[in-house]
Amino acid sequence: MTVTQAPDEKPPVPVSGQPANGHPAEPDAKSHAVSGHTIDAFHNGGFFLVQPSDAGHRAGMDAMLLAATVPDGARGLLADLGAGAGAAGLAAINRLPDLSADLIERAPVMADCARRSLALEENAHLAARARVIEADVSLQGKLRRDAGLADYAYDYVILNPPFNSAADRKTPDPLKAEAHAMENGDLFERWLRTAAAILKPGGQVSVIARPESMAEILVALGNRFGGVEVTPLVPRQTDDAIRILVTAIKGSRARMSLRDRLLVHEGAGHGFSARMNDLANGRAAFPRRMKNRPPKQR
Amino acid sequence: MTVTQAPDEKPPVPVSGQPANGHPAEPDAKSHAVSGHTIDAFHNGGFFLVQPSDAGHRAGMDAMLLAATVPDGARGLLADLGAGAGAAGLAAINRLPDLSADLIERAPVMADCARRSLALEENAHLAARARVIEADVSLQGKLRRDAGLADYAYDYVILNPPFNSAADRKTPDPLKAEAHAMENGDLFERWLRTAAAILKPGGQVSVIARPESMAEILVALGNRFGGVEVTPLVPRQTDDAIRILVTAIKGSRARMSLRDRLLVHEGAGHGFSARMNDLANGRAAFPRRMKNRPPKQR
Repeated sequence: MTVTQAPDEKPPVPVSGQPANGHPAEPDAKSHAVSGHTIDAFHNGGFFLVQPSDAGHRAGMDAMLLAATVPDGARGLLADLGAGAGAAGLAAINRLPDLSADLIERAPVMADCARRSLALEENAHLAARARVIEADVSLQGKLRRDAGLADYAYDYVILNPPFNSAADRKTPDPLKAEAHAMENGDLFERWLRTAAAILKPGGQVSVIARPESMAEILVALGNRFGGVEVTPLVPRQTDDAIRILVTAIKGSRARMSLRDRLLVHEGAGHGFSARMNDLANGRAAFPRRMKNRPPKQR
Repeated sequence: MTVTQAPDEKPPVPVSGQPANGHPAEPDAKSHAVSGHTIDAFHNGGFFLVQPSDAGHRAGMDAMLLAATVPDGARGLLADLGAGAGAAGLAAINRLPDLSADLIERAPVMADCARRSLALEENAHLAARARVIEADVSLQGKLRRDAGLADYAYDYVILNPPFNSAADRKTPDPLKAEAHAMENGDLFERWLRTAAAILKPGGQVSVIARPESMAEILVALGNRFGGVEVTPLVPRQTDDAIRILVTAIKGSRARMSLRDRLLVHEGAGHGFSARMNDLANGRAAFPRRMKNRPPKQR
């Protein structure tokens, strides 16, 4: 295994013009480490992730931004749907000491990485507040509950689903293909149906996705959620957005709002904006603008 | 009648935080002019609009921005659906000498204003390139064709539909209510169905609307249009968007893109950004980023 740590000025995954979802955390020779895994540092060494070195979806900026949508002071239980190695869920609980996380992942290889991550000595401060649930997010009803996803159990749900379109599916790596491809076009409907079922009323769902998934996401949020806030993620001024960050509240009837964009890069170089750096490294949250009362704690 | 002319530095309608759709062009005592109409200057006196002084939807910045989405060099025929007094359609042909416009309006009072506008001496340079069609945009099939909206007849369709939600409908003025209220929630579906029917293949549709209509619009564009470009209109940095400008191409299969926002105000004062001023006054277009070949001319 190889331990890599991203320096402060260079968060794990640079977001460039039109990146694929999930770059290697450090795109160098480390990907052929001894055991076939790498251990990558996030949040400036605040926590570490065991990831397959040469296969599967590798966590990056998307996961860090998704975690940042959980507001400061968040308490209770979070579900990370399609958690992969656990990047987004662990990023959330690393910043938020009163929050616990269930990492839901279907692919055994990735669920195994998540379990290995929790077993790392460096993550000892997180292990008691996280568990891995190997389950298909698309399950419904009794099957879903039997898999460990109880109704009305969560205060927060975050999801970073495999969102490459069918046109991008020609990848030779079947594990990567599973992580990246939408299987039949109704992925957001299935995942957001589950999110609505397992959230408490008033609970918050967060999604990071490509702008082209906007219609699908808004339709799937439908009457289940309200107070939708969409924030475009724009690499540099005048660029098209490469991602949308979407949050919504279960049962809210508030209207959707479209927030001003988050700018990834500032200035002439490849550096991140100060704000993006803070979000990527767990030093700041990206809270909603609409005020809403979080679900009551038991 | 009263003739007002907006000075260069102050385009017809200031866009503030959350404006209602359609402010008076000059919100002063002129609204009680002799005949019950005002004549308002647009494009720095490039053309004039007869509008009811105290009723109906009054044209403003929305109409000017909508017209700006028709690219420089545009030729052929444009349909302005729900034209009101004709602001958007006339703004388009005032900037574009090779374009003609059909102004489609259901409300007799507003269609009458549009006809009076075309009869103004000051608009003599436009009169031969515009006509008013008094018809309901929602008509279908033979009824629509009989009303003068032929299939495959238009190169461009622009629409600025009445987009206040039912919650805002409590206006005492029934004409205003008709202009502002969505009748039954499927307005964009009905209007974009008509847009798709009357456009030539490869023709461009443009919509200006509230961000909360995003899902409805994207769904209604559906398989009829592609290459959707959505541009948020943001009053000032970090504000939520107050409008979305949407363009799409009939029959295109290109993916949606979300463009960086247009900023309305710059600096500390109430002044418009230089770009916004140019767009509002017909000195610049806001063209699409995706390249597409316009429909062939007959």
